Amino acid sequence: MSALSIREAQSGDLEAIIRLHEEDELGSHGDVWSAETRPAYEAAFMAIQKSPDNRLFVALDGDEVVGTFQLTFIPNLTGRGATRVKVESVKVKATRRSVGIGAQMIAFAEDHARTHGAAAMELTSNKTRKDAHRFYERLGFSRSHEGFKKKLI
Amino acid sequence: MSALSIREAQSGDLEAIIRLHEEDELGSHGDVWSAETRPAYEAAFMAIQKSPDNRLFVALDGDEVVGTFQLTFIPNLTGRGATRVKVESVKVKATRRSVGIGAQMIAFAEDHARTHGAAAMELTSNKTRKDAHRFYERLGFSRSHEGFKKKLI
Repeated sequence: MSALSIREAQSGDLEAIIRLHEEDELGSHGDVWSAETRPAYEAAFMAIQKSPDNRLFVALDGDEVVGTFQLTFIPNLTGRGATRVKVESVKVKATRRSVGIGAQMIAFAEDHARTHGAAAMELTSNKTRKDAHRFYERLGFSRSHEGFKKKLI
Repeated sequence: MSALSIREAQSGDLEAIIRLHEEDELGSHGDVWSAETRPAYEAAFMAIQKSPDNRLFVALDGDEVVGTFQLTFIPNLTGRGATRVKVESVKVKATRRSVGIGAQMIAFAEDHARTHGAAAMELTSNKTRKDAHRFYERLGFSRSHEGFKKKLI
């Protein structure tokens, strides 16, 4: 692998990002890139770009998108007004796992969050993703909370 | 109790909101309203007001602030571009607990989220808050995720 580069996602990266979501066997979010689903992804991409609190990133090996993650800055009163950064939708290409891409992405995220004034980072991970839990604990995250979800539609 | 009303927080509510945070014995976020801490809370309140993705609410019994919560709308690619709403900093006045204020706040949050196009709601709750976990499960939330945190400062 050549050196990994990480930058904000551009619209031309969208298909490659959704292809990473397609590989996700556990999340069962039904993600697939097709003529039918494309408009919804394009709308969500625009909404992320438009939001001052959200940043979507890709990790590249040369020109190839091998990873992605999203950061959400959350202004908050709790903790004496401490801004938090939530890490979302962390994906690494299936054929490129376990070579440190995820760790580089999280290190980048942490650096970006700190540089932009965040006091804490947080994320949730499906209870079935045991490998991911070990990964985040190795990186200094504490598994202190229960994560609750409710579908509205 | 007279009928509960829920509305967006105004700057005049800030001290009452932080007083609810002060009562929190488990979170240990060090929240206290004082001349020293006030500027940080005012800055965070302004940041929440300014953010198009965040809304801070108070629940009122007459003129008294008896509860608060924050909603963060998160545009996201995962789930075919499904917007999520994160519920943050849910607090009910200690002397008013177990009379349905929390359930009314979460029902309001759910309604607000659905009306504004969210496909799912999520929240995290410290693993020690067993009563809160039962509360969210009763309201239809699934405890499907592990919640990870990392302090940056």
